[in-house]
Amino acid sequence: MLKIKIITVGKTKEPWLQQATDEYLKRLQNSIFIEWILCKNSDQLISTLEKESSWICLDPMGAMQSSEEFSVFLFKLLESEGSRINIVIGGAEGLPAKIKSQAKHLISFSRMTFTHQMTRLILLEQIYRAQEIKKGSGYHK
Amino acid sequence: MLKIKIITVGKTKEPWLQQATDEYLKRLQNSIFIEWILCKNSDQLISTLEKESSWICLDPMGAMQSSEEFSVFLFKLLESEGSRINIVIGGAEGLPAKIKSQAKHLISFSRMTFTHQMTRLILLEQIYRAQEIKKGSGYHK
Repeated sequence: MLKIKIITVGKTKEPWLQQATDEYLKRLQNSIFIEWILCKNSDQLISTLEKESSWICLDPMGAMQSSEEFSVFLFKLLESEGSRINIVIGGAEGLPAKIKSQAKHLISFSRMTFTHQMTRLILLEQIYRAQEIKKGSGYHK
Repeated sequence: MLKIKIITVGKTKEPWLQQATDEYLKRLQNSIFIEWILCKNSDQLISTLEKESSWICLDPMGAMQSSEEFSVFLFKLLESEGSRINIVIGGAEGLPAKIKSQAKHLISFSRMTFTHQMTRLILLEQIYRAQEIKKGSGYHK
């Protein structure tokens, strides 16, 4: 089973976000195991990542990809990293420079600033979409 | 009072989407009146727009803007259009060519494909963010 750890700062406060993310977690449950690591602050984020050998970051300065390109990128990365990858989303203050500079890749969803809650949902939906693109299902057309 | 009509194809099926959009509608209620027009299909979208003199479209081929640029763009447009604008989001089949070619502007949130439900939420949050950027509040930093 593939495993993606999503490491972020902050809590899931909104009930709607919980409901929305649950829907995608359910859809992914037989193929990709998603683990959420919610850190209290940037220091905890740094110490969490010290235990990891590699990660990618969502960052406004990152490369923009279409969903098709993200699908190819994601599954190649999972393959090269032994089916386990870590994706980091920054908190309200952005990502610590150290975390960004050590990241294997920086990717960006948009030139716009989204809330961190929405970014989590968009990431999860893009992971699900990436899988459906690879499968060639009708979800992405 | 400013008025933005958001014209789209499809229903709000997910309860989480309703909850999430309600939150931003509440935050905007004293400054920008948002009217949703949910069309059943592309034909209904076309006939709805025949009654309007101008609109902008969200389209993957559109111009990408940062949230700051979108804020300037949105309020300039509201000013030039007499405080009332129409924003069109396509359905699962995308936007009819006629609607796109007659649009005043095409704007894009991302190179990625998002669900239409999420696009509605992102648009609403960007409208709220645009207002907070203009105000200079602490919401956008």
